[in-house]
Amino acid sequence: MSETLFKKLESYYDEMVSIRRYLHQNPEVSFKEEKTAHYIKTYYENLGIEVQGHIGGNGVVAKIYGSKPGKTIALRADFDALPIQDEKDVPYKSLVPGVMHACGHDGHTATLLVLAKALNELRDELEGTYVMIHQHAEEYAPGGAKSMIEDGCLEGVDAIFGTHLWASEPTGKIQYRVGPFMAAADRFEVSIQGKGGHGAQPHKTKDAIVTAAQLVVNLQQIVSRKVNPIDSAVVTVGSFVADNAFNVIADRAKLIGTVRTFNEDVRTNIEEEIERIVKGTCYTADSSYDYQFHKGYPAVINHKTETEFLAELAGKIDEVKWVEETEPDMGGEDFAYYLQQVKGTFFFTGARPENTDENYPHHHPKFDIDEKAMLIAAKTLGSAALNYHSFHESKDSVEVGS
Amino acid sequence: MSETLFKKLESYYDEMVSIRRYLHQNPEVSFKEEKTAHYIKTYYENLGIEVQGHIGGNGVVAKIYGSKPGKTIALRADFDALPIQDEKDVPYKSLVPGVMHACGHDGHTATLLVLAKALNELRDELEGTYVMIHQHAEEYAPGGAKSMIEDGCLEGVDAIFGTHLWASEPTGKIQYRVGPFMAAADRFEVSIQGKGGHGAQPHKTKDAIVTAAQLVVNLQQIVSRKVNPIDSAVVTVGSFVADNAFNVIADRAKLIGTVRTFNEDVRTNIEEEIERIVKGTCYTADSSYDYQFHKGYPAVINHKTETEFLAELAGKIDEVKWVEETEPDMGGEDFAYYLQQVKGTFFFTGARPENTDENYPHHHPKFDIDEKAMLIAAKTLGSAALNYHSFHESKDSVEVGS
Amino acid sequence: MSETLFKKLESYYDEMVSIRRYLHQNPEVSFKEEKTAHYIKTYYENLGIEVQGHIGGNGVVAKIYGSKPGKTIALRADFDALPIQDEKDVPYKSLVPGVMHACGHDGHTATLLVLAKALNELRDELEGTYVMIHQHAEEYAPGGAKSMIEDGCLEGVDAIFGTHLWASEPTGKIQYRVGPFMAAADRFEVSIQGKGGHGAQPHKTKDAIVTAAQLVVNLQQIVSRKVNPIDSAVVTVGSFVADNAFNVIADRAKLIGTVRTFNEDVRTNIEEEIERIVKGTCYTADSSYDYQFHKGYPAVINHKTETEFLAELAGKIDEVKWVEETEPDMGGEDFAYYLQQVKGTFFFTGARPENTDENYPHHHPKFDIDEKAMLIAAKTLGSAALNYHSFHESKDSVEVGS
Amino acid sequence: MSETLFKKLESYYDEMVSIRRYLHQNPEVSFKEEKTAHYIKTYYENLGIEVQGHIGGNGVVAKIYGSKPGKTIALRADFDALPIQDEKDVPYKSLVPGVMHACGHDGHTATLLVLAKALNELRDELEGTYVMIHQHAEEYAPGGAKSMIEDGCLEGVDAIFGTHLWASEPTGKIQYRVGPFMAAADRFEVSIQGKGGHGAQPHKTKDAIVTAAQLVVNLQQIVSRKVNPIDSAVVTVGSFVADNAFNVIADRAKLIGTVRTFNEDVRTNIEEEIERIVKGTCYTADSSYDYQFHKGYPAVINHKTETEFLAELAGKIDEVKWVEETEPDMGGEDFAYYLQQVKGTFFFTGARPENTDENYPHHHPKFDIDEKAMLIAAKTLGSAALNYHSFHESKDSVEVGS
Repeated sequence: MSETLFKKLESYYDEMVSIRRYLHQNPEVSFKEEKTAHYIKTYYENLGIEVQGHIGGNGVVAKIYGSKPGKTIALRADFDALPIQDEKDVPYKSLVPGVMHACGHDGHTATLLVLAKALNELRDELEGTYVMIHQHAEEYAPGGAKSMIEDGCLEGVDAIFGTHLWASEPTGKIQYRVGPFMAAADRFEVSIQGKGGHGAQPHKTKDAIVTAAQLVVNLQQIVSRKVNPIDSAVVTVGSFVADNAFNVIADRAKLIGTVRTFNEDVRTNIEEEIERIVKGTCYTADSSYDYQFHKGYPAVINHKTETEFLAELAGKIDEVKWVEETEPDMGGEDFAYYLQQVKGTFFFTGARPENTDENYPHHHPKFDIDEKAMLIAAKTLGSAALNYHSFHESKDSVEVGS
Repeated sequence: MSETLFKKLESYYDEMVSIRRYLHQNPEVSFKEEKTAHYIKTYYENLGIEVQGHIGGNGVVAKIYGSKPGKTIALRADFDALPIQDEKDVPYKSLVPGVMHACGHDGHTATLLVLAKALNELRDELEGTYVMIHQHAEEYAPGGAKSMIEDGCLEGVDAIFGTHLWASEPTGKIQYRVGPFMAAADRFEVSIQGKGGHGAQPHKTKDAIVTAAQLVVNLQQIVSRKVNPIDSAVVTVGSFVADNAFNVIADRAKLIGTVRTFNEDVRTNIEEEIERIVKGTCYTADSSYDYQFHKGYPAVINHKTETEFLAELAGKIDEVKWVEETEPDMGGEDFAYYLQQVKGTFFFTGARPENTDENYPHHHPKFDIDEKAMLIAAKTLGSAALNYHSFHESKDSVEVGS
Repeated sequence: MSETLFKKLESYYDEMVSIRRYLHQNPEVSFKEEKTAHYIKTYYENLGIEVQGHIGGNGVVAKIYGSKPGKTIALRADFDALPIQDEKDVPYKSLVPGVMHACGHDGHTATLLVLAKALNELRDELEGTYVMIHQHAEEYAPGGAKSMIEDGCLEGVDAIFGTHLWASEPTGKIQYRVGPFMAAADRFEVSIQGKGGHGAQPHKTKDAIVTAAQLVVNLQQIVSRKVNPIDSAVVTVGSFVADNAFNVIADRAKLIGTVRTFNEDVRTNIEEEIERIVKGTCYTADSSYDYQFHKGYPAVINHKTETEFLAELAGKIDEVKWVEETEPDMGGEDFAYYLQQVKGTFFFTGARPENTDENYPHHHPKFDIDEKAMLIAAKTLGSAALNYHSFHESKDSVEVGS
Repeated sequence: MSETLFKKLESYYDEMVSIRRYLHQNPEVSFKEEKTAHYIKTYYENLGIEVQGHIGGNGVVAKIYGSKPGKTIALRADFDALPIQDEKDVPYKSLVPGVMHACGHDGHTATLLVLAKALNELRDELEGTYVMIHQHAEEYAPGGAKSMIEDGCLEGVDAIFGTHLWASEPTGKIQYRVGPFMAAADRFEVSIQGKGGHGAQPHKTKDAIVTAAQLVVNLQQIVSRKVNPIDSAVVTVGSFVADNAFNVIADRAKLIGTVRTFNEDVRTNIEEEIERIVKGTCYTADSSYDYQFHKGYPAVINHKTETEFLAELAGKIDEVKWVEETEPDMGGEDFAYYLQQVKGTFFFTGARPENTDENYPHHHPKFDIDEKAMLIAAKTLGSAALNYHSFHESKDSVEVGS
């Protein structure tokens, strides 16, 4: 049946492009995506597919019921844009000043809508149920995934699949990874309050620059000494500001940084270690501090079985030229929350535009995708959805694998 | 045919125990294992199996030729002991003062000898060739593997398998891992030469303790800033000595430490980074240094296909209750060298003694193994050897996996 | 004769106040003090005293020749103001927006002019020659002293005396010190050029914040280890700026700081040590740097004999209630240059306003002085000038003192 | 009368040498100097001078009463030796194995005994009272000075003078200094208790070497940031020991160091700052510590008036060729305790042997003095004692000096 689905998707490719371009011209930033949500909901209504809006905010969830029993498979596409001015010179350039689909979520949405349309037409032959999760607000913490889950979007779901169109890889490549795939990305701020004074009288002061410098040095020991070498972790101080005249001793210094992890225990441990080190370093300097740790999304941890299943299926799609196990990416994604609840996998679909002199990264004002990648994404997601029912893990009496 | 082999191994289990206990009573330290080598060689000669001694030192290599065409499979067992006084109270306690099989290599040898005997009896039905590599000197760098390879022990070999009886895991468990399995373990020494003097006159000195302390702090930045967070690495200063009276300023300080890595590029990079940091830190302090980096064994990197093949086979052995993908172990093994040359895998065979109050770790004076684990090791290695011929990687037009 | 001079000064006190207030209302910033210079020159011309303007810039030098042989004594007063808005509510408030005599140089000038007038009237009885050095541009490096000396203002001078009206001490106090009195105050800037990048990918970067933090820590070792404990020195980093988003790794960090010393060797050594430490720290981090050290004024080093001579004379003036040896002050003064050429001393004349609720420090928008202190300054300087001729150092065959 | 005294001392020079050599041959270590004390007491008894032994231990105090009223002047000489084997090849070499007058206290004693004899002969003309303090145990804390003072040796004393024969300066030189002359010399020990473990598993440990290294770095900030730049202070870690195998993580590290100061507040502050920094650094590393601070002698702070008085008198002695104000010496002396109670000064009397190829420092097995320096020491101390009565500070209504 995959072949039938693939043919349909090919025949609807122009519609996919058309939808994507419409969305590209009409972007809305995170948590403000009301018109986009309405557009999505209307699309399903016009097709007679069951759909519900206002799921956990601007989220939209549609369901297609196959005529045969089977698993319930969720597919997810996010649809928010970014507060970036579109600087491309293309006919489908953003019509909204200062707002732009600079991350490909327009493509995700077009892919999923057209895939839903095609699946719906195969309804009589389908096993199980297909849940189309159109998620708002992926770009801005706390994100839309968490509230959509809380609002029930995963109820009854057996597995979930999602992809990101990935402009740094060529069209035709699928990148997957078992286990940690994208990092938990947190943010911390430390203000050191010393006691300022004249640069020539250190004994009357508590030098906040020296204390903060010592703190930066001490923080290196978290990754070098406190994290299991087998685990990945990053603690970066990105900003250090104590902006004074040359001849004073700093009263205050402010540090801001990020923590990246793939393991929740490591993450919690680092949050605590930073505080311990801040506290100890400030005690050493007889100074006080303010410490805040702002949790971002957790890590995207792909399930082994679903990931290997997807990788195998991807290899069977004509347009897919490479299926590659990749290293974890240190960026964040709130797809992480879905995978904490149900089995599934998140993967990258190469989407690098051809015939362009330059390749612009995600979030760049001239970012664009190769639209042909949408067809690959649709086929891969669709193939996963169709085949998951007949997929059986080999469960020997002895379990192989952790 | 695996079943036939398994039956034979079961029937020879008493001999396996007998050989292991003989070796346990007659241990020889690394590079001095002449009697053990002679014992092994004689065993093969008595069975009429082609055997050759003095391979790259005290190494012994035996070959069994099947009557049918097939792959050439090597199996490896190491046979050196340690300079440790046996403190066990058992009938087969070491007869050599200060020398002991405290790591289970006696068991490895017994396992491989009896497995060879059983395979030899099946010669008429066997495909391919079986190379029994009895390696001396695993415990002491530069080890025996390197010289045995240089002396040709891997010539014509298609794949190699080896195991370590692992006393920290219960008998019945097989632990495997694709990719990095055991670490490269290197050693470095840094001597800081400052300029000593009276403790009250720092301006006339170059304080070697301050410089070395700064160096220890600076070295933390290798793991925290210079290693890809995806890679594992450890840089530890284990010893810091500048032993002076309280009222002098140190002339010299000596640091000794270890580096652990799984990736050869990371390893090389760390060796260079340490030197850069030593050089820069000493320049900062107007001091000089001596830096030495002694490479130990490289990392054991298991091949994906062979490892998954082995894990699947292990699951089919009756005595195997758990087949578990494990985290990398930070210890070193010169099996690493074989895997740099040919495909294969190294795995742990659980061998924790039952009915003992305490569990002694490897290299402990009371270390012992559960001898029943030898049978499991023999079956697993034997099964891998027999089945490798018929094993075919699925090579789709699209390659799945990195 | 001191008594005669003192009486004259007392009788001219009102003129002193009048001159000071005129200058206070008409301040000019450093290197722009043309009208003030003209005012001073005219004052001398009106009295028929030999005077020359445009000495080394806006400097003015007047000479009074005694009728008897004797030493040539220079007295110095600076006359520049500061770019500060006068916020006092007094009749003699500055008439120039944004410019103010916030350091008492108006008082110095009035003191010296009236002292010169009085001395000139005693010309027939005077021994030696009196050189009135009215110096421009003390507040702003490179200052006026250096160029006035280069232009000859110290030619033939045997000794020089100068004072600063000092608003933090009560009127009636003279503070002196043999040897180091005010510090050399230098300025340094270090830019660390690392290699920026994503906060989650430290291995692709050279983290400028970590390097600069390490540098701040390393710089502490100059004072703790590289300066003779007997000498005084300060190395302060007053500003540390690497102002980035939380999730990037800093490409660049900028440090600005000050160095204070009393000994020229220590000063030079610190300038070199900072560079060594910057260079070594950047080498350690594989980063580059830009280092600049801007020399300010050297330290004011008072000559022992002249200082003790002045302290003794000061104790004989009725209005002087305390003569106090004080600790060195870490501020800078270009009087230092005069003392590098000829013998002499610089001292503080207490000038704290009475009957005010608050005491404003030098350079404060509400700074003021107690004008009565001018009379004390004039008497002390005048007494030193008159008595220096008859002052003989006791030069035994054995020299006492270093 | 000084001249009469000087002549007597010259005539008794041979006796001085004789006494010194007897003592040199019969040295006794600190707190064990019973025979020496008896020798001293007997000397006075034979001369009919009032003398008392067992003052605060082995101390001996003799008193000479002049026939005229006057001040009470104390002169002090210490008489303990060191546990060092005499390696000189001279007739007066130590007769006691492993014990030696390697610091010149034999010379101090001979000087004071003969000076007392000479003064006693002038008794009829003397003003005031002369207290000869023969102090035991200067070399070993807590020293003899403290207990002798507690036992009353300073009762009624108006001023005290003492000298050290100083072998690093030529005979004929007197070195003096107003204020801080010799340092307070304290000792501290810090044990860091982390948690040891395998060198490849930092996350299971608390690395005591990293913590102790961080501590050494942090301690630099005491002198650089916490001590007034005008004050002198040294904090030195002289010993750092964590002696382990290369592949372990240190469980414990031990630091031992010294603190040198001249100001009691600075000293107390540093003792507290070290503890704060130890505590904060260990908190940062989640480790514990043991910290001990052992106070040595306080700083020798010479009184201004008495010091300048002595320097002036010294310049009048024929054999004195140089009277030099020197920098503070960082060594310790329990003469400090006397100066905390009464006015006085401690100075160095140059005593470098002539005609020797090498110059051995104090506490060296070949240490010796130029005996002629004893005559200079006796004249200087005697001159100070005789002239102190007629010495009047000029106390003007205005006090000059701090």
